[in-house]
Order: sequence, then structure tokens, then C-alpha cells
Amino acid sequence: MSEIAIVGAGVTRFGKRDDVTYRELMAEAVAEAIKSTNGELRPNEIEGLYVAASQPELLVDQAHVANLGSQLFGLTPNIVSRVEMACASGSAALRNGWAATKSGLADVVLLVGVEKMTHNPALASRGLCLVPDVENESLHGITAYSGFALAAKEHMNKYGTTKEQMSSVAVKNHYNGARNPKAQFYSKGEITLEKAMSAPMVSDPFNLYDCSPLTDGASAVIITRGDLARKYTDQPVYIRGAGQSTEPSLGVSNMESITEWQALKRAAKQAYSMAELKPSDIQVAETHDCFTIAEIIEYEDLGFTEKGKGGKFIEDGESSLSGSLPVNTSGGLKAKGHPIGATGLAQVTEITEQLRGAAGPRQVADAEIGLTHNLSGFATHHVVHILSSNPK
Amino acid sequence: MSEIAIVGAGVTRFGKRDDVTYRELMAEAVAEAIKSTNGELRPNEIEGLYVAASQPELLVDQAHVANLGSQLFGLTPNIVSRVEMACASGSAALRNGWAATKSGLADVVLLVGVEKMTHNPALASRGLCLVPDVENESLHGITAYSGFALAAKEHMNKYGTTKEQMSSVAVKNHYNGARNPKAQFYSKGEITLEKAMSAPMVSDPFNLYDCSPLTDGASAVIITRGDLARKYTDQPVYIRGAGQSTEPSLGVSNMESITEWQALKRAAKQAYSMAELKPSDIQVAETHDCFTIAEIIEYEDLGFTEKGKGGKFIEDGESSLSGSLPVNTSGGLKAKGHPIGATGLAQVTEITEQLRGAAGPRQVADAEIGLTHNLSGFATHHVVHILSSNPK
Repeated sequence: MSEIAIVGAGVTRFGKRDDVTYRELMAEAVAEAIKSTNGELRPNEIEGLYVAASQPELLVDQAHVANLGSQLFGLTPNIVSRVEMACASGSAALRNGWAATKSGLADVVLLVGVEKMTHNPALASRGLCLVPDVENESLHGITAYSGFALAAKEHMNKYGTTKEQMSSVAVKNHYNGARNPKAQFYSKGEITLEKAMSAPMVSDPFNLYDCSPLTDGASAVIITRGDLARKYTDQPVYIRGAGQSTEPSLGVSNMESITEWQALKRAAKQAYSMAELKPSDIQVAETHDCFTIAEIIEYEDLGFTEKGKGGKFIEDGESSLSGSLPVNTSGGLKAKGHPIGATGLAQVTEITEQLRGAAGPRQVADAEIGLTHNLSGFATHHVVHILSSNPK
Repeated sequence: MSEIAIVGAGVTRFGKRDDVTYRELMAEAVAEAIKSTNGELRPNEIEGLYVAASQPELLVDQAHVANLGSQLFGLTPNIVSRVEMACASGSAALRNGWAATKSGLADVVLLVGVEKMTHNPALASRGLCLVPDVENESLHGITAYSGFALAAKEHMNKYGTTKEQMSSVAVKNHYNGARNPKAQFYSKGEITLEKAMSAPMVSDPFNLYDCSPLTDGASAVIITRGDLARKYTDQPVYIRGAGQSTEPSLGVSNMESITEWQALKRAAKQAYSMAELKPSDIQVAETHDCFTIAEIIEYEDLGFTEKGKGGKFIEDGESSLSGSLPVNTSGGLKAKGHPIGATGLAQVTEITEQLRGAAGPRQVADAEIGLTHNLSGFATHHVVHILSSNPK
């Protein structure tokens, strides 16, 4: 069977979305995704449906949200599931949608990612505290902030990574976000390195600008068999490679290393191998910058630079919009925002737009091969996809 | 590629399990499943992991439970997800595991279903109220009990189904549960029709014995490619047919009919068609008897009897252990118990044991073809699997 192709992808405006309900947010994303097809897709052609959502029970008092999707979009899919893999729910949904399509159960699959968090920040924070190992770690005081801060401290000690390098990730991503009208901090514009470095402390060494925000938002992606793709778009984007792995750990304590993410390296290896491509072939990437240190470690473990050289990679401007490998052109989780369930498919949407030449003021010239990376927990679970405007 | 086969399946004892934690419950089920293989399966051969869980955030303060599975079982799977489809999470996980195996991403997939509910019945009930359409229905007072009661009333009016017929489902399932040491009501033994009919009212026409209980429990199933199955067991059970569908509705209000479940009929049609089998080929079935009326409607919509004749089917003893088509030999949700996330895979475990001739005092003689049916919401989502001890 041919490769699987993306034929539509869209995101809502991210940010504080008190103007819409959870359902309206889902519908808005699907409308955006459909708008990006050629209009030939009929609802009864959608045979698979995945909804990626992390905390709907806690945050909007609604479970069973994949069946909500059936109702909203008038679907009777042959394969349907809500996927919850915390912050990586969206890309885990894509991995399942890929398998569903490849298995022959569905020719066209709709993937929707969604989270509404800003109306109750305390509850959203509580939800995030349920993601790592609650019994063994969260109950003893570790949070996402302090957990990733441990990794930052160790990376600084081990490789000489600096606070300035971390803040540079924030500066770059706010620069990109200021060029993305869908980004949460679009209207706040660019920030200076001085501003990024002098913000209030959150968890040493992280200050406010090292951390991604709470966000409302949704995203949607439509995939189909490669040989059917041109029925729905003149610009299919092919899933050339895909990989997923976990640590045999839910918390930081059982990880082999907190500065060299083995599960990410496994997921990346699967994706590169399947795509028959190498890190130097990647022209644009969306990676999981939940904290600035994460993006730096990802440069390394995705193979964009050597281990320990992630700090230098950002310092040298390699990952900036005009660099050798622009990363998080959308603004990333940092400036575009991080509506948990929506993030993975929003990353895929950004790369799809880049490969279609539709990224406007943040377009990477002539990009034909892009990568997405999405993680969850204390970097204990990773999903990598390699996309291209050309089939293999 | 060959069919997908089940090589191991197991359930924990269901009931009030204050003796174990949520994690221990998961581990107990996986140990049971592994015990049912030939002992040749090594953890590093498990390439896929699905955890089916409905309400872990609410009930045990833990999200991201598929990654918890990685930790508990020391796995680094290539495809991994927590699947939430409310009461049908387990069979939706199997559907995804089937697709993952079929797609080539994983040769061996572990599926684990789990729920712990009895320590906080109020919270468990709240969780169940989040499953249907909260905004449009639950908030206005409809519950699982009153929703299915509507279907019961209409079925009685339309087809002459009687309270006695519904109570007979409870009597049959408690009879079977009294023969299943893993069942929640095993030690309570059989009940008389008089007892079933005279229990306290819950939601007219349902009394206590028309309703399934809150339960703690877990289940696990291990699947692989058919051509690899005999490496792990001398008694593989093949997934001959599978089907899934939803109503384009999350609540009762958008269903075409509340007494003739179109999504079930679609899921069953897919499964029979894939298996190239018909309802009369089925020799034993586990169906979703969350309420007694559900089992009666399922006799009809699964094609075991004509529409409207479900009441007569139970009345004539067709579905009893000694009948023409024994249904819910495990005791069903009614007497075995209904730990939401675990139910679907527990049904698959029961049929696997039946087809292996390992069901002890509730064994259906010479059973070679069995069926499982699992639903969620107000019967707005259905999954059907057809299993056989013989490949096609």
C-alpha cells in the first residue's frame, strides 16, 4: 500500500478563548482543516475518527469526547477512539490514525485535538500534576516545572548550557509567534533577551519565559491513503516516517538519563529509518518546547547537533527563522501556546503549511521535508513524524 | 497478512478490591494473561501497548496511564496509547491493537483494561454522568439509569417485552456468575425470579437487579500476527471479524431509534461480513448487559433473533447456559461486574476461555465460534468482535 498522506490540516486561534465552548473550538479546528482541502471531501467519506484530549473530564465535565466528535460532525466511523497521552495525545492519535488507514479499516481519517484550560488555571494545573507518577513523585512535591528544571540544572552542569541560551529559545519562539496570527502571544509581539532573562522566577533555573502557558485551542488533521490524496487536495503532504516510544518509566526516577532522552532517540530512529532520511535532510521542525531546556535537548536527541551542543545550536542562530534549520516557526508551545490535547496536531498543521508554502511571514523558503516532535510526562513518551511534500 | 490471534487473556477477580492498588490491579491482570500463554513471551517482544481506562483522573488521581503501563511492565513499545471510549474502552483498545498489528507497527501487542470504582461510589457515579451529552442531556437530569429506562419503556410498549423477561436476564446472569470465581457476585450465588422482580426500584422499570454494579477489576489480552501465534500458545484464538460504529449522537436525543441500535447493527454487519459468518454460526457470546433491557435489544440487533423477539429469546431459555446460544456465560456486566475500562477485554477473555475449553463449570460444549459486544454511552457506540479457535 502507498504512503499515508495529509490532505487537510488546521488550527483555531490559540489563547484565551472565552468566546467559544469546547465543542465550538473542536468545530472551528475541523472547519479550518476542511478549508485547507479542495472541498471534495464529504462527511460520509470519513471512516475513522480520533479525538486527542487530555483533561476533558476535569476541565469541561465531559468524557467520551470521540463520540462527541461523531455527533458534532455527523459521523458514523468504522474506527473511533479518544486518545489520551497527556501532552502528546495529538501525535499519538495521528500514529493510531496512520495504523488504522494502513490496516485497511479506514481510507479517510479525521484527527481532532482539543483542550480548554484557561477558564480554570488551578484545575488545569491540577490536571497537569496527574500526568507524571503521582504515587511516587507528584505527591512528594515534584511538578512539571521542577521536574524539567532538574533536567535543565543537570544539562547546565554537564554541558555548560547557559541561562542565556535557554532564554534565547524563548526570544526566538516569541519572534516566530509574532508572525503567526493564530499564536497565543501574537499580539504581544517580540521580546528582548533582556526581558526573557529578567522575568520572575518560576522554578530555578526557569523564569516565566522558560515555560509554556495554559492555552485554549484545537487542531485537526485529515489523512488518507496516498493513492487517494489528490482527490482531496493538490498539495498532499506525505507521512514519510513515524516513530513512537516510551521510557519504561512514568516519572523522572526510572529514566536512564534526564538529559539524554532514550525514548526520544528510539522514536527518532524509527522515523528516520522508515523515511530513509537523516537529520541533515530536515528543513523545518516543530519540537516540543514545553520548557526552553526541552527544545535544547531535542536539538541533540533528534540529531540536529551533537550531544551537549544544543545550547550552542540556538546561540549560533541555527534554529532561527533564517537559520540552517528553523525550529518552532509557529512560535512553538512557548509562544503559540500549549492546549494539551491540541498540540501534537497543531505541530503537524504548522509543518503541513510550511511544506505547502502557506506559512506567510514565517515561511521557510523551499521547505520540502519537515519534522514534528511531541512529548509527554517528564519526557517519558515521545512521538516523531517526518513529513514531505513529495512521496518516497 | 494472516489473521490476528489472541495468545493470552486474563482477568483479575472482580468486585470490591480494597486489597490492591490500581497499579497492582493492572499487574494482576497482565500476570493472568501471561499465565495463559505457554511462557515463551518475553517483555521485549511486546511492541505495542494499549491501556483502556475510563476515569483514572477522577477516581485514582492518575492520568497518562498507558505510560504507567510502560513503567509497570518495563516496556518501550513502538505504538502506545491510552484509549477512552467510556464503557467500551477495552474493545476500542483491541480494535486499535488489531490495526497496529495489521499495519506492521507491532508484532505483539499487550492490551490492558482497568478501573477502580468502589472506593468512592459518588465520584464513580459522577464520572458515569460525564459520559453522555452533558450540556444537552445530563445537566437536565438524565442519567445512565433513566436513559436506558426510556429504551426499556419504549421496547415494552412497542414489542410487548415484559418486566419478567428483563428480570430473567438477571436470573440467568447471576446463575452464570455463580459459576465464575472471578465474578463480583460469585459468592452471592444464584437468585430467584421472584427476588429479581421484587428488588427496590431504581428507575422505572428498572429495579436493583436490572442494573450492573460498580466494580474494581482489570483485564488483559495479548495479540499477535496469526503466523506467529503458535510461538506463544498451543491454543490461539483468531479474531475472525471485527466491527465498530457510533451513532452521530452522544446522547439519546439524536439517535434514530432507542430500541433498534443502528450503530450496533453497523458494527455487527462489519464483523459478520469480515468473518464471513452469520448470527446462527455464533455458539457463545458476551454482550453488554449494563441493564437487562440492553441484553434483550442486543439479541435482536446482533441478529440472534428477530426484532422485537428478544424478550421471547430469554423467556425460551435460548441464551441460558444450556440453551441454543449461551449469552454472558461469565455472568455478564450484571453479575461478573462492570469495571468500566476493563469490561471489553474481560468479555474477550471469557470467549477466549470458552474457545479454549477452559471455562470450567460454565463451559459451552464444543464452542468454536464466539462473539463479544461492548457498548458505551446511551448505546451510541458499539464494538463487535467474532473469535474462533480456527483460522479462516
